[in-house]
Amino acid sequence: MSRFFSEKFAALTPYTPGEQPRERKYIKLNTNESPFPPSPKAIEAAAKAAANLQLYSDPTCKALAEKVAQRYGVSPNQMILVNGSDEVLNFAFMAFCDKDHPAAFPDITYGFYEVFAELHHIPYTKIPLREDFSVGIEDYIGIHKTVFIANPNAPTGMTISPAQVERILQSNPDNVIVIDEAYVDFGAESCVPLVQKYDNLLVTQTFSKSRSLAGGRLGFGIGAEALIADLHTIRYSTNPYNVNSMTMAAGYGVMCDEAYTQKNCQTVCENRAFVSDELKKLGFEMTESKANFIFARHPAVDGGALYAKLKEMGILVRHFEKPRIRDYNRITVGTREEMQALLDAVRQILEGNV
Amino acid sequence: MSRFFSEKFAALTPYTPGEQPRERKYIKLNTNESPFPPSPKAIEAAAKAAANLQLYSDPTCKALAEKVAQRYGVSPNQMILVNGSDEVLNFAFMAFCDKDHPAAFPDITYGFYEVFAELHHIPYTKIPLREDFSVGIEDYIGIHKTVFIANPNAPTGMTISPAQVERILQSNPDNVIVIDEAYVDFGAESCVPLVQKYDNLLVTQTFSKSRSLAGGRLGFGIGAEALIADLHTIRYSTNPYNVNSMTMAAGYGVMCDEAYTQKNCQTVCENRAFVSDELKKLGFEMTESKANFIFARHPAVDGGALYAKLKEMGILVRHFEKPRIRDYNRITVGTREEMQALLDAVRQILEGNV
Repeated sequence: MSRFFSEKFAALTPYTPGEQPRERKYIKLNTNESPFPPSPKAIEAAAKAAANLQLYSDPTCKALAEKVAQRYGVSPNQMILVNGSDEVLNFAFMAFCDKDHPAAFPDITYGFYEVFAELHHIPYTKIPLREDFSVGIEDYIGIHKTVFIANPNAPTGMTISPAQVERILQSNPDNVIVIDEAYVDFGAESCVPLVQKYDNLLVTQTFSKSRSLAGGRLGFGIGAEALIADLHTIRYSTNPYNVNSMTMAAGYGVMCDEAYTQKNCQTVCENRAFVSDELKKLGFEMTESKANFIFARHPAVDGGALYAKLKEMGILVRHFEKPRIRDYNRITVGTREEMQALLDAVRQILEGNV
Repeated sequence: MSRFFSEKFAALTPYTPGEQPRERKYIKLNTNESPFPPSPKAIEAAAKAAANLQLYSDPTCKALAEKVAQRYGVSPNQMILVNGSDEVLNFAFMAFCDKDHPAAFPDITYGFYEVFAELHHIPYTKIPLREDFSVGIEDYIGIHKTVFIANPNAPTGMTISPAQVERILQSNPDNVIVIDEAYVDFGAESCVPLVQKYDNLLVTQTFSKSRSLAGGRLGFGIGAEALIADLHTIRYSTNPYNVNSMTMAAGYGVMCDEAYTQKNCQTVCENRAFVSDELKKLGFEMTESKANFIFARHPAVDGGALYAKLKEMGILVRHFEKPRIRDYNRITVGTREEMQALLDAVRQILEGNV
């Protein structure tokens, strides 16, 4: 820390992203990326855009906003496109939280919520998940805070239903409820249709998971026009050209190839079922995940040790050294071959050969 | 504004970017873009990166940081790469300004400084440029504020010297001095070498102007390691994957083709001299610009009227309806053909034919 760093950040602990090693080729099951390349339409569109980068990107993201809005049955004025969905989450903490509107989110969830709250000096409450890691809906009824819930939740993959979200929305009419649907395309039910009914709902999604654009950085938020207008006010006060031309083009290409996205999601769901069954046969316990990862522990192997041994064997998974979940590992669902390699490695470890 | 928008932003007026019209083909001289496409090496590298977007981009930007650092004679730990230089300016306002460290910048300069200060509720002082639009160095000596100076300044294109910056640095040892060198490659002298001598200097630059990557969104900051570490703390608390893979690759390609950048800058400087001379012959007065734009007024034509007439004729320039500068227009220096078209249009206007 320099002697110039504002004291207001003296206690700030940044987010720790999953390892992105460059020095060795791993089977990478640690950051919930898609095992499939982007749609050929996305690749082609991005490459074409690269030739024209001397001009600024469209700060209104008009073409892409219209395309995504059409897909989700909303108006372009009900959506905002961002440089990865972390950006819209950051904007939401800025816009809809303050001393009079503290934040609330589960104790076990996407780690960035707490970082955003700390960054902006927003008071916040961490609501413990239930013993089985499910979100206790009753805990959010009439809480009168700005609520952030990942659905499916990370790193558990567990879901809540739109009907449950409606109860939270109805009982907190004066607070924004943010539903982070980064993983929704792998089997959960989206709350996007509810934005037409509730002016206090913001749904965020990403192109990083089901749409194979993690490296392109593209996310979006959907909500009532007035909510979205507030987020644009923050965006235009931060970085109006936040989405670059190539990513905009790639996103448009992805949206023109919905069948490709659907097929990939289906494959991931099949592989999730396969690897879950096999791991259960090996004695693993796991949450019921509707995301592109599983969250599993084994009664006979320490979570951190399993992570370390898998890494030695060339397989990266994610381990969180945190209360309640240190026995677990979060394992991204990849290709069938990757899952087979994981299972082989796990068997070796369980047999004490490693 | 929604009823949920935090009151702290009730008075926030976002930045207004230059027009990016999509409905009509203009000769676009309004946002200081390069008239030249990116280096073929940049285009090729970006297109290649597009095929692998399913993986997250490298949050450390290692390869590109090393390449840029080498070019500028600094260590990779002395630099930060960002999603357009607006991002590092935003981070600098967050990191190095607060109630005890108010900001100071010229009254006529890049309009985003004031927006950032408002966004983060940082007290700030606008220091009037001198009558001739030059930066009054004496005004910043011992000011004991966090200073932001664009050099060359926008929209005037006028410069200060590294020796003058040193006086500001020396007389404000407990404040960070930010020198925004977005336009430095068109004839000004960079302050980057001073970062080895002063721990309170942050220099920001962009790939948007001289390097033809405006639509790619890539900027950087250079300073002492401790300063840069603070900015990384903010970055990792905001958006760790802020630079996408394609842009990183494009930036690397650009850095491998320095001769192309140099040649383009030289052409812009030649065209600047050409169009300046011709406009002077037509009675225009202008500042001495070392940027890729000129800032000119004509005693016989209202600034706003000139802007509007040029737009009608298919030429976009930038007019700021602000005190002291409303007689002027900022005109990006483009190709020789574009400058010829501008001069033809201006002659028509002056002759009263339009």
